[in-house]
Amino acid sequence: MAFKFEILKKSKKSKARVGKLYTPHGEVNTPVFCPVGTLATVKTMSPRDLVEAGVEMILANTYHLMLRPGVDLIREAGGLHKFMHWDKPILTDSGGFQVFSLADMRKVTDRGVDFKSHIDGQKHFLTPQSVLELEGAYASDIMMPLDECTPYPCDKKLVALAVKRTTRWAKESKSEIESGQSKIGTLFGIVQGGTYKDLRKQSAEEISEIDFPGYAIGGLSVGEPQNEMFDMLDAVTEILPFDKPRHLMGVGFPDDISGAVKLGADIFDCVIPTRLARHGTFLSSEGKVSIRQARFEKDFSPIDPTCDCYACKNFSKAYIRHLFWAREILALHLLTIHNVAFYMKMMAEIRKDILDE
Amino acid sequence: MAFKFEILKKSKKSKARVGKLYTPHGEVNTPVFCPVGTLATVKTMSPRDLVEAGVEMILANTYHLMLRPGVDLIREAGGLHKFMHWDKPILTDSGGFQVFSLADMRKVTDRGVDFKSHIDGQKHFLTPQSVLELEGAYASDIMMPLDECTPYPCDKKLVALAVKRTTRWAKESKSEIESGQSKIGTLFGIVQGGTYKDLRKQSAEEISEIDFPGYAIGGLSVGEPQNEMFDMLDAVTEILPFDKPRHLMGVGFPDDISGAVKLGADIFDCVIPTRLARHGTFLSSEGKVSIRQARFEKDFSPIDPTCDCYACKNFSKAYIRHLFWAREILALHLLTIHNVAFYMKMMAEIRKDILDE
Repeated sequence: MAFKFEILKKSKKSKARVGKLYTPHGEVNTPVFCPVGTLATVKTMSPRDLVEAGVEMILANTYHLMLRPGVDLIREAGGLHKFMHWDKPILTDSGGFQVFSLADMRKVTDRGVDFKSHIDGQKHFLTPQSVLELEGAYASDIMMPLDECTPYPCDKKLVALAVKRTTRWAKESKSEIESGQSKIGTLFGIVQGGTYKDLRKQSAEEISEIDFPGYAIGGLSVGEPQNEMFDMLDAVTEILPFDKPRHLMGVGFPDDISGAVKLGADIFDCVIPTRLARHGTFLSSEGKVSIRQARFEKDFSPIDPTCDCYACKNFSKAYIRHLFWAREILALHLLTIHNVAFYMKMMAEIRKDILDE
Repeated sequence: MAFKFEILKKSKKSKARVGKLYTPHGEVNTPVFCPVGTLATVKTMSPRDLVEAGVEMILANTYHLMLRPGVDLIREAGGLHKFMHWDKPILTDSGGFQVFSLADMRKVTDRGVDFKSHIDGQKHFLTPQSVLELEGAYASDIMMPLDECTPYPCDKKLVALAVKRTTRWAKESKSEIESGQSKIGTLFGIVQGGTYKDLRKQSAEEISEIDFPGYAIGGLSVGEPQNEMFDMLDAVTEILPFDKPRHLMGVGFPDDISGAVKLGADIFDCVIPTRLARHGTFLSSEGKVSIRQARFEKDFSPIDPTCDCYACKNFSKAYIRHLFWAREILALHLLTIHNVAFYMKMMAEIRKDILDE
């Protein structure tokens, strides 16, 4: 199936929209949340657990997979879907964020990024072309081009340079795609600009002009206050073409997502639901709750009585708390199942609220 | 369902038999292997994974559960089945083996065992009566009485004392059951005697005389050579009543089990399949194989091509090896699923071979 995005309903109250993405590995209802499968696995969950939780698309990390298990192995396996036995869509990030947040001794030039692996210190060089080669070998459905991601806070001059370089790389990436180097995935454009509204607008204009089938907003959720993130998103979605999908990368907590949907974002990914679970925290209508608490010692009710996930239908807080304190893997598995199902239901409700307006 | 054991077929070639156990939580085909759910979870597996693998009964450890989460919590949960959401039979050991192998500063008298927890050093006292109280609160289907387990090697005088005490405790346990203290589970008798054939025979005679609905052979698989274990088992099954089930506790590797079935054992439990999995070792027709090996780096075949478990049907050695080296929990989960399924199929073949004779 060729890539396509359809807007089914536009909210009257906000910039929110309900849509559908069509990808080589099937359809995705938007707004959508993608659990993160960093190393070709959404931690503690099997693919069938993901399907059961209602997951329609996952995100995998180009940078991490390049280091472990390496692109050659994934290419030989026939791509990420076959390697990890996941037959629904996969979105891969550009590696840019990880290079700038994890890697050592990076050196950025217009040609690309030199860096040392955070695992073994080995040297690597990423260019717009090599990133697409990686994502092509992964057989990613939605690919991100190499971008330069700035931290928060960051000097405006540096952000301006990163915007310039991100635009340059976006153009090179598009040319690479058009020369037929990667035939499977669809390449999005990434907007940068830190927390400077004028730079965000400039980046959105430059990237839109290159013309991509979808857009990502990068470099947010890196430490800035929520209202600044919303301001940037709002400015950017004013400029990005209305009929193309927008991915707000690396976001976020439930209230970040519900706010961002109202500002016109369609795609989200974040490690929060899975990472919180591994730290013993589950999500419910009460917000974030730690299963470790003494008050749950003899609480035989499910972690979320309104939830119909495998964890909530069959196990009590008292049991999961026991497993967590005893360092049993099943605790992490059950909490992750619940947190991912919680996010999936949250997204379904967000879509329903827009459709029901 | 009241406890019952039926022998469906007796081998003509050996002392092996195929049978059926009827328990309050359903039927079990023997010879049966019980995965070990030490802390009310078979490590890395959910109850539905166990059912899918073909598991019909699990073993839980009285000693470990007493320390974590403690008997009060399990009692309040309504027993182990409800606590851990497992509705098939549960067999609980006596705690004797753990007290003698794990606990600190134990002191044994005819009344019972004083010891300190291996977790927090807290003092505990186990008596034949208190063990049954624990197992009753767990709502165990098959209960073991407190016994004295000797190490290997062990001075004969000490083993003789342990046999004497085990018989004494077996009598007290039976009286306790008959006085109506525990109404759910069925109490087995345990034979001890180390690797001394005369003591094994004496113990088997004394315990048989007390008359239990089933028997366990304890204190084997503690370091002695396999042939000694088989000798002891052979001597004991000559004496134990033919029509009662026999549980060879803590055994073992596949060849231990197939040999022991031929000597008349019906029930087995062991941490081997689950523990090996967590160390990256899977079982196949080749024996024990480590997934860590370099030769599997680009091996896209399943870990066992003849196996139809979830791990083998859907994932490659290359993928599971990657997950294992990346310390991903899914590796441990998939290897455990396979190893447990491998044991279940092995037991099914053992039963079929006897039925087909």
